[in-house]
Amino acid sequence: MAISLAWGMCFIFGRLANVSFPIVGVIGAGQLARMMVPPAIDLGISLTLFAGSDSESGAQVAPHRVGSLTDFAAVLEWASSCDVVTFEHELIPQELISAIEASGTKVFPSADSFVYSQNKLVMREKMSELGLPNPRWQRYEGGTPELEFPLIAKRVSGGYDGRGVFVIEDLAVLKALHDSIGQTLLLEEKLDFDYEIAVMVARSPHGQAATWSPTLTVQRDGICTQTVTPIPNFSRALAAQTAQIALAIAQGIDLVGVMAVEIFVVGDRLIINELALRPHNSGHWTIEGAVTSQFEQHLRAVLNLPLGSTALVAQYAVMGNVIGIETDKSTDLYRPYLHLMARTPDLKIHQYMKELRPGRKVGHVTLLGSDLLHLRSEVSHAVDYLSGAIDE
Amino acid sequence: MAISLAWGMCFIFGRLANVSFPIVGVIGAGQLARMMVPPAIDLGISLTLFAGSDSESGAQVAPHRVGSLTDFAAVLEWASSCDVVTFEHELIPQELISAIEASGTKVFPSADSFVYSQNKLVMREKMSELGLPNPRWQRYEGGTPELEFPLIAKRVSGGYDGRGVFVIEDLAVLKALHDSIGQTLLLEEKLDFDYEIAVMVARSPHGQAATWSPTLTVQRDGICTQTVTPIPNFSRALAAQTAQIALAIAQGIDLVGVMAVEIFVVGDRLIINELALRPHNSGHWTIEGAVTSQFEQHLRAVLNLPLGSTALVAQYAVMGNVIGIETDKSTDLYRPYLHLMARTPDLKIHQYMKELRPGRKVGHVTLLGSDLLHLRSEVSHAVDYLSGAIDE
Repeated sequence: MAISLAWGMCFIFGRLANVSFPIVGVIGAGQLARMMVPPAIDLGISLTLFAGSDSESGAQVAPHRVGSLTDFAAVLEWASSCDVVTFEHELIPQELISAIEASGTKVFPSADSFVYSQNKLVMREKMSELGLPNPRWQRYEGGTPELEFPLIAKRVSGGYDGRGVFVIEDLAVLKALHDSIGQTLLLEEKLDFDYEIAVMVARSPHGQAATWSPTLTVQRDGICTQTVTPIPNFSRALAAQTAQIALAIAQGIDLVGVMAVEIFVVGDRLIINELALRPHNSGHWTIEGAVTSQFEQHLRAVLNLPLGSTALVAQYAVMGNVIGIETDKSTDLYRPYLHLMARTPDLKIHQYMKELRPGRKVGHVTLLGSDLLHLRSEVSHAVDYLSGAIDE
Repeated sequence: MAISLAWGMCFIFGRLANVSFPIVGVIGAGQLARMMVPPAIDLGISLTLFAGSDSESGAQVAPHRVGSLTDFAAVLEWASSCDVVTFEHELIPQELISAIEASGTKVFPSADSFVYSQNKLVMREKMSELGLPNPRWQRYEGGTPELEFPLIAKRVSGGYDGRGVFVIEDLAVLKALHDSIGQTLLLEEKLDFDYEIAVMVARSPHGQAATWSPTLTVQRDGICTQTVTPIPNFSRALAAQTAQIALAIAQGIDLVGVMAVEIFVVGDRLIINELALRPHNSGHWTIEGAVTSQFEQHLRAVLNLPLGSTALVAQYAVMGNVIGIETDKSTDLYRPYLHLMARTPDLKIHQYMKELRPGRKVGHVTLLGSDLLHLRSEVSHAVDYLSGAIDE
């Protein structure tokens, strides 16, 4: 309570001379909220986070209130101090979003839009309705599926980074999974895709929309390890088609804010994988690699400001995730700066200041340039060195 | 007190998992401290400011303690929580810097270096000693000067943005000024210079040093209104000479941190005007226009980390200062976003969130590109529109 009080005082003092600058409330205080802070500072926009604890990545660097998302009264009281409320993750009760809307505070994305980020079945239905390219899919309540094995089974809601997604080889395993989860599943054909890509799109309340260059998302164990933008050897026709899909979804679901569209590439076919209605790991390259970052653009969109240019500022932008590894050694994320900054003076390092756990994203690095082989190898070296996977 | 306590708690929670990340203390909480916050967030470095009040530009967005620089005990107690202390302005008592050094906390720039930023006479003597190009100058304690009229008289310390600098036409005026100030003056020849430039240089404790491209500083009434980088029609030889001067000063005064060297160009001669041992308005273009900004570089330097690349990321970077004007109208710095962001989608806006007063810098904008005429006219339009000097 001392913390939110102190921050409240900062607000009042800081706004005296600039009375029309808005306050944006962000539900969630992870690294995505943290990365909204720099563009908010630049633009004079006040952020306030609704955090689970003071130690969260975003809460370390921004005004926040600590509370539980099940405490609707606390969230509504906090929201009443904001000009607009948005989110940095999907784990928000639908009823909470509706309650904030009902209280008269603007929420973007709206409850109606946000469901496509939260419920994979509703998302598939909507993509079909919009005539956009789904894999073959079905709702599964038990029994023998129409899709042939092997297939993909997904939790309808709550999964991310490969969690809640299962490759199913036969009926027995499917039934066992269904029994253990005890809920409707989404089944999808198991695609033999060539690679995975993502495209970020932003849209504002009055309908202005913009996409960034599509990006190659290199995956390992269901987690993105590296992105390459623009996608090497990707035809102009496919790039244009990617942008069209993203813009059609943004309009079709009445998006306000930024959204990631994850897509499988199978030959010259594009097939929609997932949606995330928030700033997304596959858009981190935009911080240095585009004129307007996804984080600044998200703030502009939810405030109904004109969107910024999404142009690339270099030939290539390569982003690498720093991911916690299994290790007995104590890992230090600061000490490696001495080596990395000397070796790669143009490397941009982003620390989330989270506790290291195996498989957890704790930071990322970005490198811009024209020599793609060099960029990718420097980025790989940097993330391995930061995470402690290599010692030199 | 509630505020610093709350921030102190944030520190403790945030550092549990990342124990070797340093805390940098900044004396001063204006816009220069504010602009250190985004790179500090990126790198996981904790900042704490020593502020004059909670409402100051930097104090709005960073942990800080409020106090007076004459209260040495308070400053020393605050400094003892920092791994290194630095400054964002020159108005710091020398004795205070020495006292922090004596207490065992590292301070950069050191008291020995910082004097060249604070005392213009000592600076001139040092430049002469280093064999670097001064204007003709002399110490003035009264009587008839050796320099002919008209000449420039300067307060030895305390002036900035043209304050404390006087054009003197005759002996009577000089004597009157000397009587009214009641202190030694620095006299300099009045140069008929072609234009003014500045160059930023960074240097770390172990002697690594780097300069950014020299920049043209367009002045009006002694205040910089616009910078253009690189300087149009500036020869490679002059650019190299500018860098050599900056590097020679950095080494000669044992600089740690970033420094601006302001220079007069007279034909093909370069003559040193002023030094500022801190991030400087003439380096604001580096935030978007260089791989490493002056603010990130300052943090790297005072932490003895390897310096980042200072390469330009575009053909030209034009920066314009938003300066308060005399007006009866109420000026709103947010509402203009609707027009400016729509008109110039690649414009980058920086708000300092300071009270508007005539002649005061309250923000800046930066635009990158290749069409210099377009860049300069868009930047001029943007700053005039933000400050309220024009309505469309």
